[in-house]
Amino acid sequence: MHTVSLLTPPPPLRALRRQYALLASRKSPGTARPRLSRDAAVQPSPQHAVVQPSPGSVRSASELSSASQCERVERERLPPKSVFRRQLPAPLVAFSSPQGRRNFAEAMAAGQLEPYFPLSEQFVTQDEPTFCGLTTLTMVLNALNIDPRRRWRDEAGPGWRWWSDEMLPASCTVPLEQVRAEGTTMDDFARLAVANGARVRTRYACGESLDSFRASLVERTTSAAATFAVTSFCRARLGQTGGGHFSPIGGYHAESDSALVLDVARFKYPPFWVPVEQLWEATLAVDEVTGRARGWFELSAAPLNERRRG
Amino acid sequence: MHTVSLLTPPPPLRALRRQYALLASRKSPGTARPRLSRDAAVQPSPQHAVVQPSPGSVRSASELSSASQCERVERERLPPKSVFRRQLPAPLVAFSSPQGRRNFAEAMAAGQLEPYFPLSEQFVTQDEPTFCGLTTLTMVLNALNIDPRRRWRDEAGPGWRWWSDEMLPASCTVPLEQVRAEGTTMDDFARLAVANGARVRTRYACGESLDSFRASLVERTTSAAATFAVTSFCRARLGQTGGGHFSPIGGYHAESDSALVLDVARFKYPPFWVPVEQLWEATLAVDEVTGRARGWFELSAAPLNERRRG
Repeated sequence: MHTVSLLTPPPPLRALRRQYALLASRKSPGTARPRLSRDAAVQPSPQHAVVQPSPGSVRSASELSSASQCERVERERLPPKSVFRRQLPAPLVAFSSPQGRRNFAEAMAAGQLEPYFPLSEQFVTQDEPTFCGLTTLTMVLNALNIDPRRRWRDEAGPGWRWWSDEMLPASCTVPLEQVRAEGTTMDDFARLAVANGARVRTRYACGESLDSFRASLVERTTSAAATFAVTSFCRARLGQTGGGHFSPIGGYHAESDSALVLDVARFKYPPFWVPVEQLWEATLAVDEVTGRARGWFELSAAPLNERRRG
Repeated sequence: MHTVSLLTPPPPLRALRRQYALLASRKSPGTARPRLSRDAAVQPSPQHAVVQPSPGSVRSASELSSASQCERVERERLPPKSVFRRQLPAPLVAFSSPQGRRNFAEAMAAGQLEPYFPLSEQFVTQDEPTFCGLTTLTMVLNALNIDPRRRWRDEAGPGWRWWSDEMLPASCTVPLEQVRAEGTTMDDFARLAVANGARVRTRYACGESLDSFRASLVERTTSAAATFAVTSFCRARLGQTGGGHFSPIGGYHAESDSALVLDVARFKYPPFWVPVEQLWEATLAVDEVTGRARGWFELSAAPLNERRRG
């Protein structure tokens, strides 16, 4: 064990060892492979070599250093137009705060965190300011365990079938470049969901009530069957900066009557608990593009014989 | 509310409304902005318009349809060389399984899930088969709340300072293209961590024992101070396909003496509980590039005056 520092030059031993290893791997092409996670290449082998712990082979701190190339970071000034996260406004409760953890434990004990477990395994960050709908859907499709029946982006790997944002648009949906330029409406979101193997029920706030909103969230957060709620709301109504936003709902906390929003803008806000009444008010705000209030979605996996794609 | 289907053509009303909205936004450049999540652009406003629920304005299912462009998905054949996830081998326990949730609840009650909360907020997927070390570090740096003091990739947004894989390599570390081609050794990982604001203690398995490994994991999973363990292990020793792998540790479950591995290859395996003794055996497997056993890391945030970057 040792603590890393960057105070001395890199060791020639390490460079030599790396070159040797590269040469060795070239000499025997049958076994040559990248070192890490070329996952399909190696099968479990109980004969794998074991090195017994040996205190004498601990590497010294100096072997990891290259200070001549590194400068103290505090000399760098912060970029003038830049932001390091936003403060979550009250009464929203941050997921990892003491109160957030208490809500979490109580909701789990009450069996009202069912969607949280599969969704948290697939939590992702929107890569573009306009991608909140797309990224929310990527997260939900992976959490619903829907097989895309197409290869994900991995070129060198074994061909994982997996969802990422750029795979969602199809000829019967809004195109990717339009999403990048404008974002998605609720209709766009529903169409994208259906085109990629989800069964979706769109609940526009018009025609609904606080009670029907809460009932839908409670039903989804309590159900062991994989069915998730996605909220489409106005951030300003929650005291947050920003406009319209999509994110999945992970759970419901009865004591505080609040919902857990797994916010996909993770560079900005943490996941948070929000009173259901406040979230409902935020779904009533009019989307200036559609001229109507927002709402929410109920999503599950469609049977294969229902699936269509343009 | 309605259920979406793709059986009838898209409504001209919707297209007209979209064109109108686009035209309207062009006419008043002072207020023109993308619809969703241009987050810095809109401040909270209590005067935001509210639409009262009105059952008459519910949109019909036919308005979302465009079946002429969509084909039944089951006609598509699966790509010949492709994989939809791997089965987690026993005795590993999947995070979202009934047993996994019981472990989780007991570990939380025992106060041994401290790292889980901040880490789960930042859970990410490795984009390349060789990126497990890089992606693990991205996840840890964001969870440690370390300010990169540089802008993230967002070009159009307010300049979020945020970590993503491609930001980590520096002139004093392994370059990105080498990571892509070869992956990272434990030394590479430690150097990348230090160059990006972490304080890291590298624990090579040589010179350690099962007891010191367990003690380190227990200390980190119990500590309220942000300090995380990252495991470097051989997948084959866990009965998984693949070679060397990195991932953060989210918690410890005393009853089963197992650790929660937040596996960053999320297209392949879910997060899982693994007996500490088995994970220890998997850290003893020799890395063929370095010629030595693997190990683990203890990571925390470095004070600003300690930070260096090449």
